[in-house]
Amino acid sequence: MLEACRRPDLVVEITLQPVRRLGVDAAIFFSDIVVPVAAAGVDLDIVPGTGPVIATPVRDRATLEQVRPLDPAQVDDIAESVHLLVAELGPVPLIGFAGAPFTLASYLVEGGPSRTHAVTKAFMYSEPALWHDLLSRLADIALTYLRVQIDAGASAVQLFDSWAGALSEDDYREYVMPHSARVLAGVDDVPRIHFGTGTGELLGAMAQAGADVVGVDARTPLDVAAGRVAKADCTTALQGNLDPTLVFAPWEVIERKVRDVLTRGAAGNGHVFNLGHGVLPETDPDVLARIVDLVHRLTADGGELSGTELSGSELSGSERANGGAAGG
Amino acid sequence: MLEACRRPDLVVEITLQPVRRLGVDAAIFFSDIVVPVAAAGVDLDIVPGTGPVIATPVRDRATLEQVRPLDPAQVDDIAESVHLLVAELGPVPLIGFAGAPFTLASYLVEGGPSRTHAVTKAFMYSEPALWHDLLSRLADIALTYLRVQIDAGASAVQLFDSWAGALSEDDYREYVMPHSARVLAGVDDVPRIHFGTGTGELLGAMAQAGADVVGVDARTPLDVAAGRVAKADCTTALQGNLDPTLVFAPWEVIERKVRDVLTRGAAGNGHVFNLGHGVLPETDPDVLARIVDLVHRLTADGGELSGTELSGSELSGSERANGGAAGG
Repeated sequence: MLEACRRPDLVVEITLQPVRRLGVDAAIFFSDIVVPVAAAGVDLDIVPGTGPVIATPVRDRATLEQVRPLDPAQVDDIAESVHLLVAELGPVPLIGFAGAPFTLASYLVEGGPSRTHAVTKAFMYSEPALWHDLLSRLADIALTYLRVQIDAGASAVQLFDSWAGALSEDDYREYVMPHSARVLAGVDDVPRIHFGTGTGELLGAMAQAGADVVGVDARTPLDVAAGRVAKADCTTALQGNLDPTLVFAPWEVIERKVRDVLTRGAAGNGHVFNLGHGVLPETDPDVLARIVDLVHRLTADGGELSGTELSGSELSGSERANGGAAGG
Repeated sequence: MLEACRRPDLVVEITLQPVRRLGVDAAIFFSDIVVPVAAAGVDLDIVPGTGPVIATPVRDRATLEQVRPLDPAQVDDIAESVHLLVAELGPVPLIGFAGAPFTLASYLVEGGPSRTHAVTKAFMYSEPALWHDLLSRLADIALTYLRVQIDAGASAVQLFDSWAGALSEDDYREYVMPHSARVLAGVDDVPRIHFGTGTGELLGAMAQAGADVVGVDARTPLDVAAGRVAKADCTTALQGNLDPTLVFAPWEVIERKVRDVLTRGAAGNGHVFNLGHGVLPETDPDVLARIVDLVHRLTADGGELSGTELSGSELSGSERANGGAAGG
């Protein structure tokens, strides 16, 4: 997996697949959340069936020192992949991709994927100074990684904080948000999507962190999400949130749910149609293509929902790879 | 595990442990969520490291027929365990335990634990008549199982819908709530706790299903939960919601968070202090005992929070067993 993410021929092929196969309106850069951390020198591997495994988990000052800044020269191949993709994609925008500081920290502190993030949170509560040092370093890495992609031609970015939903809002604001906000502030020359799952209670904070679009999973209806974003005094657009398991339902149910997502999404300040989480491995691509087509028909000029501000659809096969590798 | 749940000597010993060791104000009956389904004749096993494995998953009319009513005589040992426990516990109340229809259905349809519940939801959307038949049968089983415990002396019940959070509120109301409501209506002679995790968007519906207390996980602050319950025109009390990972934090952090839970809990119509989810295996029981003691001090007459309606604390080691067996 790590090697595939560093080979421009493979990255280009995998990133283009959903655009060609499904007809989505944007491509998302195929990568894994730990690629920039590994490129910066942290000894880790992605083990099939497990996910990222860190050779020496970060637990104290000494082990923290392995997290060094990312030099853009260490990811020359990423810039090359983006250049090739932008040329191939033509008018279709490419969305850059990076893991957010908290989610990266969870892998580094736990030593691998975790369901509870217990070791991560114990470290966060016990060693707040080291914690903020770690998240600051990871913010630097994520920012450099996104800047490389933007400078090579990416039109937008998505910051994946897959595990932020494990935190209460208070803890998110204290221990995480300043670092994610710094990443997002550093890429404010392009639209910024801020994604997580299980983040129903964090949507206001994730919008306030500086996102132009906040991702919403299938648990929180988009009209409810719009209310939470508005309550946080934000005008952030929404992305989401068809339940990825719905692809296995009869088409009538899928169509009803797609219409419901679009209707609720219209309650916000702009809406990017998407799944609420990654594509499941057993998914039939033909069903995804049919969903993309339905969204296009419903939102086209003259379509019955032409009044929505839906700005694009993005049902990316590369999110599947990302989601899978992240264990989410 | 299944055998341990059917041996009164073991059930009594394990159920009493947290009362003796931690000094909690109530005991929760030690059982596993699939015990009554197995007792009713469904061929299943609890595989260590995996969880419940169903010999023939329920996917159609033929496989549905294996789910037969539970005869109270099939769980004579459960009644015996409850009798013994009530005698041992004296004034300490015993809370009965059963899995809710949706969570039981997920195990039966998937054939085992699932992270996505994709097969369950596909069945639910594709075969609504069979789905409602299945949930109705499981509601009958859960109700019989709880009645056996009440009739033997349990003072309250807790209905565990561990996986309900995988559903949107609309789907919960259409496919699940009527069945859980029927279970809860059948035990309205005792206080009824309705528990789930990841249910931040379902708290109003779970209260409306007929609960006297609704469980809240650590993601949703109790004052926010109180607002959602009130918005659903309910006066349901709240249970929760200290993050189970907090036991690994320094004591000052634990104490600050316990106080925060109690303060926010006072926003509702009564509050049962508890963890937001099951006890993690690595937890030091001494820390749990210290938390129980702190809650008792803070809520005792004359304590600084004596104005709260906190009605008891319940930090049960048997929830650990349940949570573990449920894969949650």
